[in-house]
Amino acid sequence: MEEQRTQDLGFARLDVDREARTGTPEVVYAAGKTPAETVACLAGLLDAGLPLAWATRVDAATAAAVRERWPDALLDDDARCAFVGSLPEPRGRVLVLTAGTSDGPVAAEVAATLAACGVGCRRVDDVGVAGLHRVLAVAPELGTADAVVVVAGMDGALPSVVAGLTDRLVVAVPTSVGYGAAFDGLAPLLTMLTACAPGVLVVNIDNGFGAGVAAARIARSAHAGRHAARGLDGLDGPDGPDGPAQR
Amino acid sequence: MEEQRTQDLGFARLDVDREARTGTPEVVYAAGKTPAETVACLAGLLDAGLPLAWATRVDAATAAAVRERWPDALLDDDARCAFVGSLPEPRGRVLVLTAGTSDGPVAAEVAATLAACGVGCRRVDDVGVAGLHRVLAVAPELGTADAVVVVAGMDGALPSVVAGLTDRLVVAVPTSVGYGAAFDGLAPLLTMLTACAPGVLVVNIDNGFGAGVAAARIARSAHAGRHAARGLDGLDGPDGPDGPAQR
Amino acid sequence: MEEQRTQDLGFARLDVDREARTGTPEVVYAAGKTPAETVACLAGLLDAGLPLAWATRVDAATAAAVRERWPDALLDDDARCAFVGSLPEPRGRVLVLTAGTSDGPVAAEVAATLAACGVGCRRVDDVGVAGLHRVLAVAPELGTADAVVVVAGMDGALPSVVAGLTDRLVVAVPTSVGYGAAFDGLAPLLTMLTACAPGVLVVNIDNGFGAGVAAARIARSAHAGRHAARGLDGLDGPDGPDGPAQR
Amino acid sequence: MEEQRTQDLGFARLDVDREARTGTPEVVYAAGKTPAETVACLAGLLDAGLPLAWATRVDAATAAAVRERWPDALLDDDARCAFVGSLPEPRGRVLVLTAGTSDGPVAAEVAATLAACGVGCRRVDDVGVAGLHRVLAVAPELGTADAVVVVAGMDGALPSVVAGLTDRLVVAVPTSVGYGAAFDGLAPLLTMLTACAPGVLVVNIDNGFGAGVAAARIARSAHAGRHAARGLDGLDGPDGPDGPAQR
Amino acid sequence: MEEQRTQDLGFARLDVDREARTGTPEVVYAAGKTPAETVACLAGLLDAGLPLAWATRVDAATAAAVRERWPDALLDDDARCAFVGSLPEPRGRVLVLTAGTSDGPVAAEVAATLAACGVGCRRVDDVGVAGLHRVLAVAPELGTADAVVVVAGMDGALPSVVAGLTDRLVVAVPTSVGYGAAFDGLAPLLTMLTACAPGVLVVNIDNGFGAGVAAARIARSAHAGRHAARGLDGLDGPDGPDGPAQR
Amino acid sequence: MEEQRTQDLGFARLDVDREARTGTPEVVYAAGKTPAETVACLAGLLDAGLPLAWATRVDAATAAAVRERWPDALLDDDARCAFVGSLPEPRGRVLVLTAGTSDGPVAAEVAATLAACGVGCRRVDDVGVAGLHRVLAVAPELGTADAVVVVAGMDGALPSVVAGLTDRLVVAVPTSVGYGAAFDGLAPLLTMLTACAPGVLVVNIDNGFGAGVAAARIARSAHAGRHAARGLDGLDGPDGPDGPAQR
Amino acid sequence: MEEQRTQDLGFARLDVDREARTGTPEVVYAAGKTPAETVACLAGLLDAGLPLAWATRVDAATAAAVRERWPDALLDDDARCAFVGSLPEPRGRVLVLTAGTSDGPVAAEVAATLAACGVGCRRVDDVGVAGLHRVLAVAPELGTADAVVVVAGMDGALPSVVAGLTDRLVVAVPTSVGYGAAFDGLAPLLTMLTACAPGVLVVNIDNGFGAGVAAARIARSAHAGRHAARGLDGLDGPDGPDGPAQR
Amino acid sequence: MEEQRTQDLGFARLDVDREARTGTPEVVYAAGKTPAETVACLAGLLDAGLPLAWATRVDAATAAAVRERWPDALLDDDARCAFVGSLPEPRGRVLVLTAGTSDGPVAAEVAATLAACGVGCRRVDDVGVAGLHRVLAVAPELGTADAVVVVAGMDGALPSVVAGLTDRLVVAVPTSVGYGAAFDGLAPLLTMLTACAPGVLVVNIDNGFGAGVAAARIARSAHAGRHAARGLDGLDGPDGPDGPAQR
Repeated sequence: MEEQRTQDLGFARLDVDREARTGTPEVVYAAGKTPAETVACLAGLLDAGLPLAWATRVDAATAAAVRERWPDALLDDDARCAFVGSLPEPRGRVLVLTAGTSDGPVAAEVAATLAACGVGCRRVDDVGVAGLHRVLAVAPELGTADAVVVVAGMDGALPSVVAGLTDRLVVAVPTSVGYGAAFDGLAPLLTMLTACAPGVLVVNIDNGFGAGVAAARIARSAHAGRHAARGLDGLDGPDGPDGPAQR
Repeated sequence: MEEQRTQDLGFARLDVDREARTGTPEVVYAAGKTPAETVACLAGLLDAGLPLAWATRVDAATAAAVRERWPDALLDDDARCAFVGSLPEPRGRVLVLTAGTSDGPVAAEVAATLAACGVGCRRVDDVGVAGLHRVLAVAPELGTADAVVVVAGMDGALPSVVAGLTDRLVVAVPTSVGYGAAFDGLAPLLTMLTACAPGVLVVNIDNGFGAGVAAARIARSAHAGRHAARGLDGLDGPDGPDGPAQR
Repeated sequence: MEEQRTQDLGFARLDVDREARTGTPEVVYAAGKTPAETVACLAGLLDAGLPLAWATRVDAATAAAVRERWPDALLDDDARCAFVGSLPEPRGRVLVLTAGTSDGPVAAEVAATLAACGVGCRRVDDVGVAGLHRVLAVAPELGTADAVVVVAGMDGALPSVVAGLTDRLVVAVPTSVGYGAAFDGLAPLLTMLTACAPGVLVVNIDNGFGAGVAAARIARSAHAGRHAARGLDGLDGPDGPDGPAQR
Repeated sequence: MEEQRTQDLGFARLDVDREARTGTPEVVYAAGKTPAETVACLAGLLDAGLPLAWATRVDAATAAAVRERWPDALLDDDARCAFVGSLPEPRGRVLVLTAGTSDGPVAAEVAATLAACGVGCRRVDDVGVAGLHRVLAVAPELGTADAVVVVAGMDGALPSVVAGLTDRLVVAVPTSVGYGAAFDGLAPLLTMLTACAPGVLVVNIDNGFGAGVAAARIARSAHAGRHAARGLDGLDGPDGPDGPAQR
Repeated sequence: MEEQRTQDLGFARLDVDREARTGTPEVVYAAGKTPAETVACLAGLLDAGLPLAWATRVDAATAAAVRERWPDALLDDDARCAFVGSLPEPRGRVLVLTAGTSDGPVAAEVAATLAACGVGCRRVDDVGVAGLHRVLAVAPELGTADAVVVVAGMDGALPSVVAGLTDRLVVAVPTSVGYGAAFDGLAPLLTMLTACAPGVLVVNIDNGFGAGVAAARIARSAHAGRHAARGLDGLDGPDGPDGPAQR
Repeated sequence: MEEQRTQDLGFARLDVDREARTGTPEVVYAAGKTPAETVACLAGLLDAGLPLAWATRVDAATAAAVRERWPDALLDDDARCAFVGSLPEPRGRVLVLTAGTSDGPVAAEVAATLAACGVGCRRVDDVGVAGLHRVLAVAPELGTADAVVVVAGMDGALPSVVAGLTDRLVVAVPTSVGYGAAFDGLAPLLTMLTACAPGVLVVNIDNGFGAGVAAARIARSAHAGRHAARGLDGLDGPDGPDGPAQR
Repeated sequence: MEEQRTQDLGFARLDVDREARTGTPEVVYAAGKTPAETVACLAGLLDAGLPLAWATRVDAATAAAVRERWPDALLDDDARCAFVGSLPEPRGRVLVLTAGTSDGPVAAEVAATLAACGVGCRRVDDVGVAGLHRVLAVAPELGTADAVVVVAGMDGALPSVVAGLTDRLVVAVPTSVGYGAAFDGLAPLLTMLTACAPGVLVVNIDNGFGAGVAAARIARSAHAGRHAARGLDGLDGPDGPDGPAQR
Repeated sequence: MEEQRTQDLGFARLDVDREARTGTPEVVYAAGKTPAETVACLAGLLDAGLPLAWATRVDAATAAAVRERWPDALLDDDARCAFVGSLPEPRGRVLVLTAGTSDGPVAAEVAATLAACGVGCRRVDDVGVAGLHRVLAVAPELGTADAVVVVAGMDGALPSVVAGLTDRLVVAVPTSVGYGAAFDGLAPLLTMLTACAPGVLVVNIDNGFGAGVAAARIARSAHAGRHAARGLDGLDGPDGPDGPAQR
């Protein structure tokens, strides 16, 4: 393995060359860190020359600390993400479906991740299988996407249905939406892992970030060439040209 | 509670009046019993005057013992059920769907149970959601049934989809079909319990008997009047007028 | 599948024809939605022409938002349900039993659901098997109901006992009442799934809504004809002609 | 702790004074031991002067080895127990109930254990709650016993019902009888641990030995005085003066 | 079953004759009840003539409501129990051991229950097996008790050790003390169920009430005769003549 | 959804147009089917015009039945797959890594699936993280593949390490290799779902088929154009141009 | 066992001679104790002559109570530990690695424990396997330590990798860091138990104390001789000469 | 990381320098490998110059294949291990305790592993806590060992007790001995992870190999210098100078 740089903050050891190595930069997981630690990590990444430093699982206190340090930071409240720097120009398109409205925050994290990875996204929310016509209505769009991300809690049945309708890879995200025998996302997780249709790949419960990174890799492998930087404006919510919601 | 009779066999205490009380006679659960014990229980029930004595979870040795004692017994190998006596004339109709061919034995137990309860049955096998057109093809039939039983292993997604298409009650039976994260039926069990569509009621994993009894009660509540006895002939497999397969 | 309408709110896609298709309208699951979102969904359903729009899992903030928008809304605090519009005239009767007083809120959700579905309900609370005479006292009523809903936490033993006393279908609702090895409702869930008496069908832990919808379908299949609308008055608590408690 | 003797066999270290210390001798757990090891342990206990040496979980090969070494050994096939030496004269009486016939082998282990502990036993099998009159029929006997052992698989509901009918301690034994959501005895185990009636104490799944020892201690604490030895004859099956079945 | 009375409060159905039937009165489980409901239940039991009405799992609000209604009520904060009426005169003696100081509240519930059942109690706290001499120090007392209750969280190893030292029945209470792989009491629960020493019987996690009732039955079966009433004074903490701590 | 054809075999309903719809034909899951049923399904698919019919989870009896019906069938014993017809010409390349030799059969199923999907494959076995230099030795190859499949049991740590070294998507397959706390594949499943490196997508335990289909989709999205048919020869084992092992 | 002293506080029974017996004194587990109880235990240990009394799982209220009683107490906020008395002079060296910054508090408890046990410690934080060069960078240090403690949440993969690089014993500490399928530390716990590299020993989730004690024993067995006392100064954070952070 | 050699067998990639790197050579895990594969791996290791090649989890067929290839191989049937080459001269001493006779095979694997690692071993079997005097009898030996390995199934309580008696590190091995709530070793695993005494480190269920390697590292760190080779003779069973039993 060729030489890889590390930015040493004492309490953290930033993996500066991760983007060069894996296509995705080190992203700060803010849960379990103090606001000051998250800010220090973001600053360290920017100092190392990254055009965009980025944190997930950002709570209100951390969002405020980021805003104070970088007044022009992009804070996506739905997705609980913070971005400092310039988002890349989007290429390709990933379709993000949710089974219900309550799955929205996880889908927002998917969309924000795609935006940060320079991949376009279209969200269609609330197309659960209990109203199958809603799924069928979106079926014609499936083939126009580079990949499909399906976000669902409770029974988690949507990915099985979608995968039977398309030749695109389905990235399935179980959510902790539901109660009782949903067991905080265990039920949809098992459903998705045992999906009767092949072509379904699964990430951790509520892991919109992981789904976004994976879908972005699929999209990028189908669209060669570089992504130009784009500014922090022009981001829209669900059903328009999707991306992180401006705060 | 008025006086209830018990047939005392020492090792068993047969609940002779259960049919009068609950509409379903005591049925012999042959698992964990010796062939001789099962035969003794069936004989005891017939001695007490029941027109039909009946056992589930019958293995080959027990089936042989039943056949030896009652040469004209009806033995349904698929359903692993044994019947001695006359089956009632069927009234009403329950639709039994399976997600895959491997769910067949459980569906067979549902069908055999319905036959013994005097309720008609139509089976349509292998209509899993990975080929949604197969589900949609059966949709017009849903409204013609008194109740729908859906049998599914692996992701167990079929009941959610079916329940979104009909106003009939859906009795969902998870099966132990599948491997790995299916965890012997835990995955479809949780899926069905958390179905996003209301109108889904769940029984134990592989419990075709319980699903059949429940569906029969729904059908009978919609069809007043007595059921005439019918003989042991005229039973057909899936897709015809369904019922236990003649051995 | 014939054409089905969808009311598109962006963040939600209301399934307007669900009642025509399944006999039960789309009901708003307020958990995980903001008060504003729940209100918007209710308004959308009313706009689409539904005579009654309805939400479950309503917390205090959402209840207040509903009240503010529709001063004559019916808010059932025990059941955590909100209704806007007119309740149908009840037909048929479902008997709702609880094992203990602490199971009351779930039973209240069953009762409210039945009222919204236009089915009558009688609640008898606190008839756990530790005082078997309480169960036996209610036994004569079992046969007068179209279906029986049994709500129980802890050991969840009541449905097994009730199902041995009646030919009515028993819809069993495990609750999260209890501690330790009750594991938030897992213990009664497993108990009910393995009930030694057939005729027991199970819904998710604390799922009073699902139990109510299912019981209503059974009752309605036994009582043909239309339900006239009734106003928001005349609702009583447990042990009278039951239904949602007026706020 | 005063001096305690140990019989050292190299692979085993027999706790010779356990009966003096705890009222119950060391009993050989034959599972995971070779037939020769079990025989050696029994011989070691007899050599140390115990009037009765005893093994549980005895399979066919071990039973044969015991029989070969001690032709007059008492081998209880149902209970899978082997006894060498003289059984004590029974005092007191424990009532042993099973929910179903399939729970019989575990009840047999309870009965054999009671016999070896010098306590009388009466078994009443197959009194599950699905036929409640069978439970009520045995209710008058509850008060005549020193303790009640209830053996049940599947839903495990019987101990809750029995405990509501008596002031005797109920020792509850979950069994692995059942399938699917019974999860090899987990379901009745949780049911019994969360029994809504106090006075229920629980042992491990299928642990007839532990239940027998515990019930014997209760019985003996209520019947002072010594137990005379009795021979290996006079043992009867369920419903008579119970005890291990003669082979 | 002879006639049993029920006190009907609408939301509750008090089992007035439970003490006559089972030796233990209906005790109010205050968790999941409003303070007003608990007070109403206690009042209902007193109205029905019980000399002592009693509630467990009493939180601060409920304790205040009880105190307001009955200024001379006995409120045991450690045990979270409330008593209204006169405690019976204690007979017999149960030894209550805890593995650690943090298990104290559960042991307090055991002690309060014993006091209400009219059985004496001696508590010895913090005798965990990591300091085995503390266990051995208490060993001589084991034989002087009618039964031994062992309360332990974390590894739950204490009952196995104690049961190897005594011929008294050991009632084992797993607690939710611990973290990580203790899984809220699952670890000690499994430990106790699989105790290598017979004579251990298990109750639910943190179920001091159930352990107290069971131990009281054992003690009473060894001490015939009536219990005289005693007043609400004279109760002491651990290590003295134990019982509920006066508030 | 446009018209989709179904081949109705009674016990099965073949989804003939699945390949046109999803890029992957219906593949026969032989587990739970009789050899005759599997043969009938394969024949039905060929009758419907598919150039290649294919079954997974093929045991010895089924393999023999396939061989008897189609003497030139390709039977891959390691992968437990059977192929009838012509394999497509491979395009693109997927790298398949195993953590240990015991993971080989699952990797073989991945390789066979890739071959049937017309995608090239290179297997490198036994590169577990305990000898990290083996992982580093394969690192330079990662970037030459269209996707990477990582197969691992026990701790399942390999995908996390690989994903930190490449920008290719990592499809992770947990296996049931291991014992004790591996819990039949649960341990590596959880490890992979919680991988600290993004870019890891997970399939069911031992699901080589699903991983192969997913990896093939990724590879094909990066390689436009049709795949010419290739015959049943020229297949090699691990470390050469991989594919199903000739029988 | 020779005579062992116990300091009896009524609610606690301090094991005064534990250090003489096991090399580690009784340490106060403050969770589940009131601040006053923790202070009393610490005082009792000091009264018995211990040079250092010490508590873990100290919350803010308890920390304040300790500070009030002993103004010169050492309070380590990160580790949630309190020390009263003099720390021993460190000998030997243990290397403590964390996979991520969020694992820091558990590593702090390890470091504080080592300091109290008189063993030196060097912490290197945030060396997760997603950036493998960070692990390889620390590899040369592994051989210089007496033992290595590895603290990791989420996938818990780091101990497997480290154990393949060193002949030192690896003490693995799973943490509750993570979400979803991490199941509060279950995922890394299972990963570590099934580590493919031998030489990994596991403690409870978040149990930094247990890991510290174990590592200290290993270090001390390699460094004979007595530890001189050192004062409460001179303690540093991660990456310097580690130990508890001064408050 | 300096250059590490790999012996490439195609299906396996032997980690030749693992002993130099970690102190323990690559050991062949025979489960899931064919006899031929295991033999090939052993041969490959010997070819690479290792003085001792070694396999665990060896079944009868593999043992026969090893014996055929190397007639003087050492086959330890109890431990299911095979050794080819010369065992090192033992230094140091580890004490191996079992709670019961049925834990013997796992202890045999510990002993065989220690022998192969060149560390002496003394086994004392069947010292479960139900007969505490057996534990106390071995207490004086604890301090003479370099480390203590405790092997226990069922309640797994022995390590907690032993760790309270010694300053030696206790390596705890849960076994799958037991039934019911032992859940194949889950119960003792959780017990050991939550041991109330520090100084207990845990390995996987039934992992005698891992425990042996770990204990050997502890012993070797306390005994500097090289180990001379010793032949395949002179190995004894439990209670003598322990090691693998000669076949």
